[in-house]
Amino acid sequence: MNQNNIAHSYSGKIPQAVQPDSALAVFGEDQPLQLDSGVVLSSFQIAYQIYGTLNADKSNAILICHPLTCDQHVANPHPVTGKPGWWSNLVGPGRIVDTERYFVICSNVIGGCLGSTGPAALNPQTGKPYALNFPVITIGDMVRAQAMLVDRLGIDTLFAVIGGSMGGMQVLQWASAFGRRVFSAIILASGARHSAQNIAFDEIGRQAVMADPDWQGGHYIEAGTSPRKGLAVARMTAHITYLSEAALHRKFGRNLQERSEVTFSFDADFQIESYLRHQGMIFVERFDANSYLYLTRAMNYFDLAAEHGGHLSHAFRRAGTRFFIVSFSSDWLFPTRESQVIVHALNVAGASVSFAEVRTDKGHDAFLLDEPVMFSNMNGFLQSAARERGLGM
Amino acid sequence: MNQNNIAHSYSGKIPQAVQPDSALAVFGEDQPLQLDSGVVLSSFQIAYQIYGTLNADKSNAILICHPLTCDQHVANPHPVTGKPGWWSNLVGPGRIVDTERYFVICSNVIGGCLGSTGPAALNPQTGKPYALNFPVITIGDMVRAQAMLVDRLGIDTLFAVIGGSMGGMQVLQWASAFGRRVFSAIILASGARHSAQNIAFDEIGRQAVMADPDWQGGHYIEAGTSPRKGLAVARMTAHITYLSEAALHRKFGRNLQERSEVTFSFDADFQIESYLRHQGMIFVERFDANSYLYLTRAMNYFDLAAEHGGHLSHAFRRAGTRFFIVSFSSDWLFPTRESQVIVHALNVAGASVSFAEVRTDKGHDAFLLDEPVMFSNMNGFLQSAARERGLGM
Repeated sequence: MNQNNIAHSYSGKIPQAVQPDSALAVFGEDQPLQLDSGVVLSSFQIAYQIYGTLNADKSNAILICHPLTCDQHVANPHPVTGKPGWWSNLVGPGRIVDTERYFVICSNVIGGCLGSTGPAALNPQTGKPYALNFPVITIGDMVRAQAMLVDRLGIDTLFAVIGGSMGGMQVLQWASAFGRRVFSAIILASGARHSAQNIAFDEIGRQAVMADPDWQGGHYIEAGTSPRKGLAVARMTAHITYLSEAALHRKFGRNLQERSEVTFSFDADFQIESYLRHQGMIFVERFDANSYLYLTRAMNYFDLAAEHGGHLSHAFRRAGTRFFIVSFSSDWLFPTRESQVIVHALNVAGASVSFAEVRTDKGHDAFLLDEPVMFSNMNGFLQSAARERGLGM
Repeated sequence: MNQNNIAHSYSGKIPQAVQPDSALAVFGEDQPLQLDSGVVLSSFQIAYQIYGTLNADKSNAILICHPLTCDQHVANPHPVTGKPGWWSNLVGPGRIVDTERYFVICSNVIGGCLGSTGPAALNPQTGKPYALNFPVITIGDMVRAQAMLVDRLGIDTLFAVIGGSMGGMQVLQWASAFGRRVFSAIILASGARHSAQNIAFDEIGRQAVMADPDWQGGHYIEAGTSPRKGLAVARMTAHITYLSEAALHRKFGRNLQERSEVTFSFDADFQIESYLRHQGMIFVERFDANSYLYLTRAMNYFDLAAEHGGHLSHAFRRAGTRFFIVSFSSDWLFPTRESQVIVHALNVAGASVSFAEVRTDKGHDAFLLDEPVMFSNMNGFLQSAARERGLGM
């Protein structure tokens, strides 16, 4: 199969997986990616977006690490949905992560579906999509691939690495594995490991995808199908965990959807039902089901303390990084206590660390929203770090 | 189709839906069930279990209302699973609900799948299973059918009506609709309405069932299929909501399932994954998928205050019932504040009400488990009510 045939066989949303609207860093067999599973990915590519200008001494680079279902399009319209970048309220000209001041990089994670090599990419050995033949990857693998991209861009030390949720896991991994190369780090709504409940919800999502016969044992691209229903159920489930009970009550309560009485049927009588169905439906247009399996698995496997003999503080022994940890009071996916565990470990390791719990009823999703307290805190931290780094106003 | 042919076409677990191992109260066209939807169920049956002996003045009857996925087999081995009755730690000889002292009734709710008329039952008009032609039922309908059963048994006033979760909703409905007939009421881990988050989780379950092609638009019994995968995903999702995050952490944490290292695969590496898959698998052996849709819908629709002009206290204006309300500190499906709403309304209505929040990390499921504080409180309440009712020791 040549590239054109393959692109044709991918469904509507998939071409971005093989022909992304992004810059590409291609790594050949001379630069393989050594994965935590022991598998070597002998060639791969990373799709990324850059914003702003790298300064002369290459000291103003900020890496943004994306959460599970976002991608490299952090501050530009999304090539599939046309919606603004997922963190365009934070990243852009004159924003807190000011692209007129900083050189901002955001890459699609390895295992993703927006152009970085993942299960929807072509396996060079077979000429077909990897599907489940793609090796299971970890947060460590994501970060190792990002480090190779940062090398390729000629940058030694990042001024800041910033991420929330799965992105925050990557920031922690950066500080642990490449502490010398991270001047400052911001971790939002995240944790140093996945809890049993986190794993449980992800397992629901995976079982929903795999239960869909259109998943075809993972080979749906070749089969010309798409496990839309299964992936929609997975998304709906995850979506509940992104919102707090209070936010659901405030936004939806028991309000009915465009009707004055219940219909005594299984229609979406309640606004919350209609909302969830919509969230499921739009997600499948832009995300690859197998990628969803792989990225949730990577989060499940993340346990930074376990990688350091059970002592999280040991993960940061060599880090000279300045840390800022942010949690959200109503986040029940990564509750504040998970952030506190990180703060304690950093204190034990003697690291410089600030911590803020933002009071909000918006749940886990708050880190993606307009949260003035989060913004003002992040701004103060970044301004201070910029002064220390010798980056003038 | 005659009865034998139909029984044959039902899969392994289904015969209980048409030929239950329980007593049956059959209501013909002369005693139709008027449903809240406006539909009239012109003939129906209720499957029930009884324990103990009704005393001469018929003053010692206790009705147990079952939660969503339980049934009438409250204190005897289950006819499908062979496991002990679901509340046999509470109900039985010498137990708190002492079957040597009380006459205990437990009936399968209308819409259920253990012998009471529901979507798996035969539609007398067509000779085929109702499937989605069964009318959508409510908690009010369940209670109206139970009241007809209680009439049939010749009982006017129940000494106690007891239930948790969906069973608790029925107890509230009993006290509201038939307050004069309820001497005392115990409501555990329940609420006077379903929250947006409750509805959201149920909607996930329904979408998972309906997304399974073996659901066959609801006609899986006729088609000889069973939406096992979809129903298993629904059960797995619900199961997370029955446990607290702390209980999940204590029971499973990040423990691996019979292996010392992760497998870098989508196998059930973690005990929590294995546990959930098991829960999903065993559930589909004993429960009907359409029943699951109907019973969750009934819970979603429940809003006792809305039925009384927005004032929950008005629901209890005519009740002379003694109430005992129990919540569990780690129950996030029906948090303590939902019980407090009921207690406040009962206080406003001038009802006799006791309330206890049991401190436990076991989550919603706690009401089904051995909780000494719950038991001792219930025992005290029942003993006191028995004295007032003139039921000697």
